[in-house]
Amino acid sequence: MDTKNLRVNGKRLQQTLEEMAKIGATPGGGVQRLTLTDEDKRARDLFIKWLKELNLEVTVDEMGNIFGKRAGRNNDLAPVLSGSHIDSQPKGGRFDGILGVMGPLEVLRTLHENEIETERPVAIVDWTNEEGSRFAPAMVSSGVWAGALERDWAYDRTDINGLRFEDELIRIGYKGDVPAEKWPIHAYYEYHIEQGPILEREKKIIGAPKGILCLHWYDIYLEGEANQVGPTPMEGRHDALCAAAEMILRVNRLPKKMGGNMVATVGEIQNHPNSRNIIPDKVHFTVDIRSWDDDLALRAWDDLRKDFEELAAGRGCPIRIEETWRVEHSPFNEDLVQRVLDTSAELGYSNLRMVSGAGHDASYMNQIAPTAMIFVPSIDGRSHVEVEKTTWEDCEAGANVLLHCMLKSAQEGG
Amino acid sequence: MDTKNLRVNGKRLQQTLEEMAKIGATPGGGVQRLTLTDEDKRARDLFIKWLKELNLEVTVDEMGNIFGKRAGRNNDLAPVLSGSHIDSQPKGGRFDGILGVMGPLEVLRTLHENEIETERPVAIVDWTNEEGSRFAPAMVSSGVWAGALERDWAYDRTDINGLRFEDELIRIGYKGDVPAEKWPIHAYYEYHIEQGPILEREKKIIGAPKGILCLHWYDIYLEGEANQVGPTPMEGRHDALCAAAEMILRVNRLPKKMGGNMVATVGEIQNHPNSRNIIPDKVHFTVDIRSWDDDLALRAWDDLRKDFEELAAGRGCPIRIEETWRVEHSPFNEDLVQRVLDTSAELGYSNLRMVSGAGHDASYMNQIAPTAMIFVPSIDGRSHVEVEKTTWEDCEAGANVLLHCMLKSAQEGG
Repeated sequence: MDTKNLRVNGKRLQQTLEEMAKIGATPGGGVQRLTLTDEDKRARDLFIKWLKELNLEVTVDEMGNIFGKRAGRNNDLAPVLSGSHIDSQPKGGRFDGILGVMGPLEVLRTLHENEIETERPVAIVDWTNEEGSRFAPAMVSSGVWAGALERDWAYDRTDINGLRFEDELIRIGYKGDVPAEKWPIHAYYEYHIEQGPILEREKKIIGAPKGILCLHWYDIYLEGEANQVGPTPMEGRHDALCAAAEMILRVNRLPKKMGGNMVATVGEIQNHPNSRNIIPDKVHFTVDIRSWDDDLALRAWDDLRKDFEELAAGRGCPIRIEETWRVEHSPFNEDLVQRVLDTSAELGYSNLRMVSGAGHDASYMNQIAPTAMIFVPSIDGRSHVEVEKTTWEDCEAGANVLLHCMLKSAQEGG
Repeated sequence: MDTKNLRVNGKRLQQTLEEMAKIGATPGGGVQRLTLTDEDKRARDLFIKWLKELNLEVTVDEMGNIFGKRAGRNNDLAPVLSGSHIDSQPKGGRFDGILGVMGPLEVLRTLHENEIETERPVAIVDWTNEEGSRFAPAMVSSGVWAGALERDWAYDRTDINGLRFEDELIRIGYKGDVPAEKWPIHAYYEYHIEQGPILEREKKIIGAPKGILCLHWYDIYLEGEANQVGPTPMEGRHDALCAAAEMILRVNRLPKKMGGNMVATVGEIQNHPNSRNIIPDKVHFTVDIRSWDDDLALRAWDDLRKDFEELAAGRGCPIRIEETWRVEHSPFNEDLVQRVLDTSAELGYSNLRMVSGAGHDASYMNQIAPTAMIFVPSIDGRSHVEVEKTTWEDCEAGANVLLHCMLKSAQEGG
């Protein structure tokens, strides 16, 4: 069969996404499906049911990563893989992650019903705990699978209630027997919503990120002196929240100060004892710095760190800094990026070469296999929120691009 | 009996305070005895047991306020009252509040064992929920008793888990039958730790505040736009935490800007969704402004409010402001304040006329009866923390001042 005119079933993709969105649905129209919760388990069960309907070879590895493999003509050749994640942010949206699992599922369904044979095997994957919002850090299971992170270290991550990653994995029945170890991949495509405003602003349907920004995470701990606010004069106070406020504003000004392409954010803060009439004595906050230019991000941190130490000293608030996580910027495989752009054009979709500001499982996959991503627009650039939305037409367009990119890669010989 | 040489039993006062400190004791050496919890109930039960050992007339009113009254020669005369509160801050100290209940208990024990008759009745009180840290606002039950607050409104206050004040009062068995309504008081003395560094700095044992600073509480709610931090450019962000940080620093600079005697503090902040890779979209924080000069505090708030509105507009973050609570500065009865100073001098204790930065039940009592307070030094000015400490010698000194002030007032005719 000539596959040139082959298209996914957009309606079926929509129905599949709607079915999934019921699991962990929030009153605000979003989804809360935190990793390794009962909701995650239900979504996994449904996903596996769908994989089995296509007679795929389903495996669950010891990190809970779920693979479904469709045989090719030559199963000695490395497969083409596509996937993303089923887990969501707290009160997250109905597209982030799941579109990148249901998208390739729709691709495999299209191949299946049209009885398309590929040269190479084609596979789909759901990576455990991409979000990192229950168990930090993010993308932990693709990281272990790619050999960048230690399995046992990942097992020992705990959530806010002290529950261990491994225990929760066992509890929901998804600690598989297969080692979480990479195997050869001919090409990895990850289909995802943009999560930013660029495609919408530029009026493009398909985005092909040339790679992922570097990502640096820091944790800052400040100590002040707790006292009843009324009887404690302003002079001599050691107010940890004031110190944190000064630092938060320095983070916010950092991109402008450093110039170049960079974002810097404080998203999380804990204040202690958090009582309106007690001076705060313990504050923890996070810093997130991202750039295409790793050196710029490091120089920015050096600058910021000096500022932090000065500000802390000025307030008499001892500071402790943890350099929590650092991922270098990650340029994708240029041939695959170009393939995404070319395929979009062939299918008549407007398209744009861009960057990805968010980390994805593609970051780790890019370390071990030719990798590219396919972005579709996020309405108003909103993501990680309940109102996150991408039109069904755009979801279908992205899946068609994925279909033809996967087909092209899957027909390449050894 | 000539009472001139009468003294309290400092050792017994210490033992009583140590006994009480076991209830809700924290590993850090402090006390957590939040109002209307099981710990509060146990402390109340013990207090009532001690009151009954002195054959006092014990009543519990419908706000859970506990009174113990000792008859005088002329029980038609208005009694002299002294008290404070048994409840504590979360991880609070072993002196705040409880010293002002165990202090007059020691006074009554001293009168009892020396068979001292007074002209007027002498009474002791434990006011429910002075701290306001579980159910806001603070000092609610002395406020109801004094007629400044509505009983049913107080009943409907809820804690962070949505539990109602009245329900919790019933649950611990302390919703009494007696109406929470003021009766005539000849003099009200409240004995308390200073909770600030002034007495220690000035090397004085006894402080006599000329009154309590005004207290203005505000609640600020900011809205931003939540988005994934990586793909969202710095321009166009609406970061509610950055807006809050700017405002926190304005609050901190306010006393210097306005001049005059004033403190201003942000003690509490909630950030949403509080995820390190999402731009904060909802921030709530509190503002606490105190001064001896009510007008200055109001002018300061006018100034601050304008700043807040400008800063919010600048960040594109809608702001909502609640003027939660406002108590005017409260000058105590000058005769009683002078009596505290004179009595301290007679007993050989160094002393200081000062102000109280913290609100106390004395604030409401001052609206309906001649009122004064007796302060003793807080080591390092620390309070509302586990390391809160006052020497046993100073505790004893304050109780002796209280004894003789109460005696003087109780011997005054009708």
